[in-house]
Amino acid sequence: MTLIFHERVGSGERRISPFSWRIRYALAHKGLDPQVIPTRFADVDRVRRLSGQHMVPIIEDNGVVVHDSWAIACHLEDAYPDRPSLFGGGPGRGLARLMNIWSDTSLSPPLRKQVYADFIRVIDPGDRAYFRGSRETQLGMTLEAYCADRDAALSAVHEICVPLEHTLSEQPYLAGVAPAYVDYVIFSAFQFARIGSPRDVLAGAATLEALRDWRARMIGLYGGLGDRFGLHPTEGT
Amino acid sequence: MTLIFHERVGSGERRISPFSWRIRYALAHKGLDPQVIPTRFADVDRVRRLSGQHMVPIIEDNGVVVHDSWAIACHLEDAYPDRPSLFGGGPGRGLARLMNIWSDTSLSPPLRKQVYADFIRVIDPGDRAYFRGSRETQLGMTLEAYCADRDAALSAVHEICVPLEHTLSEQPYLAGVAPAYVDYVIFSAFQFARIGSPRDVLAGAATLEALRDWRARMIGLYGGLGDRFGLHPTEGT
Repeated sequence: MTLIFHERVGSGERRISPFSWRIRYALAHKGLDPQVIPTRFADVDRVRRLSGQHMVPIIEDNGVVVHDSWAIACHLEDAYPDRPSLFGGGPGRGLARLMNIWSDTSLSPPLRKQVYADFIRVIDPGDRAYFRGSRETQLGMTLEAYCADRDAALSAVHEICVPLEHTLSEQPYLAGVAPAYVDYVIFSAFQFARIGSPRDVLAGAATLEALRDWRARMIGLYGGLGDRFGLHPTEGT
Repeated sequence: MTLIFHERVGSGERRISPFSWRIRYALAHKGLDPQVIPTRFADVDRVRRLSGQHMVPIIEDNGVVVHDSWAIACHLEDAYPDRPSLFGGGPGRGLARLMNIWSDTSLSPPLRKQVYADFIRVIDPGDRAYFRGSRETQLGMTLEAYCADRDAALSAVHEICVPLEHTLSEQPYLAGVAPAYVDYVIFSAFQFARIGSPRDVLAGAATLEALRDWRARMIGLYGGLGDRFGLHPTEGT
């Protein structure tokens, strides 16, 4: 078996992509130990040649190339049915897809408004000009302008987290008694915020205690996987 | 087997409660045909004697009394394991709980701001004074004041529906290829809006086509269950 994981990396050994993080956790859940190919934004030509598009994560599984984190999760689930399930069956998969979309469309935008101005500092120095240019074109403003009203963004994050908090005050994981792919997806959004900025988006919110406890449990899974690579530097690099 | 379903009713034969609707669909999903006891707000003494609290739905299953819609769904799933599953296993149940909480805390409040001023007209005439008084005390304002800015509430509904729309553009039901309890929960919120007001909260939003199609499919399930009872009157009653 040859399993290769093309994973986004930032400065130092940092893992900076929420999409790569959810796959890293999914691989650990399945007990799979792939060859990891650290991938910078500058490696786009290799990525394109391999997959016909420019984004990671990508896996190569015995020569089959799969990109897009959701497609990768489905591939891992279907190709390795005898290993622990990421979804727990059809309805679990359907709902994981819903929460994946919810995370990307509802939770992540206000998180980015908290993080992006700091995030540039965990990008590999050689990738920073590309990252800033592409994101600022997309946003129609500078990263700093995008993050100008952090208080409003933080309020939006906290409001959107209410259903997560209620759920986690009743059960230890979003998927119930044990973590599943949905937990990795939502965690990856918070992990992006945690690594991308020194400001803790969950700090100080007395009403988000269960969510903070869950995040700590998620960081600790698989031998402390969430802490294995670098966090945000306290000094500029 | 004796199975009794205490179900909230409004004026005429109307079913007006989202919590009762989700249980009505769950019972149909399980192929269970209970004795139905229509329950008005005025029946609160009977409800309290039976269950020790004032809300419906309630089921009595061979003498076991269960209230709270989520507890009822879990009871039906566990007591009738050989019938079609409402959750599809542990992660499906965990995520259904999350979406149940999301529906009640994030989707339903802006729906109520669309509906409540019209909703009074589908309440049984004998229950209207109680309904208005209790809700207005809770809200700290009249029903009409609560619904004063319907445009803002409608925008909030449409924004919050984005992940539902994306998901349903990829798969026919929120739970994937077949409906499950999560579909009944989210549908019950839209069914409340549909019966409680002549204004269609999904009309005119070009970007919510998949959600509208799904709602139509949900109405059609189990022999057109969603249309079996009355909708909002076009004239005052």
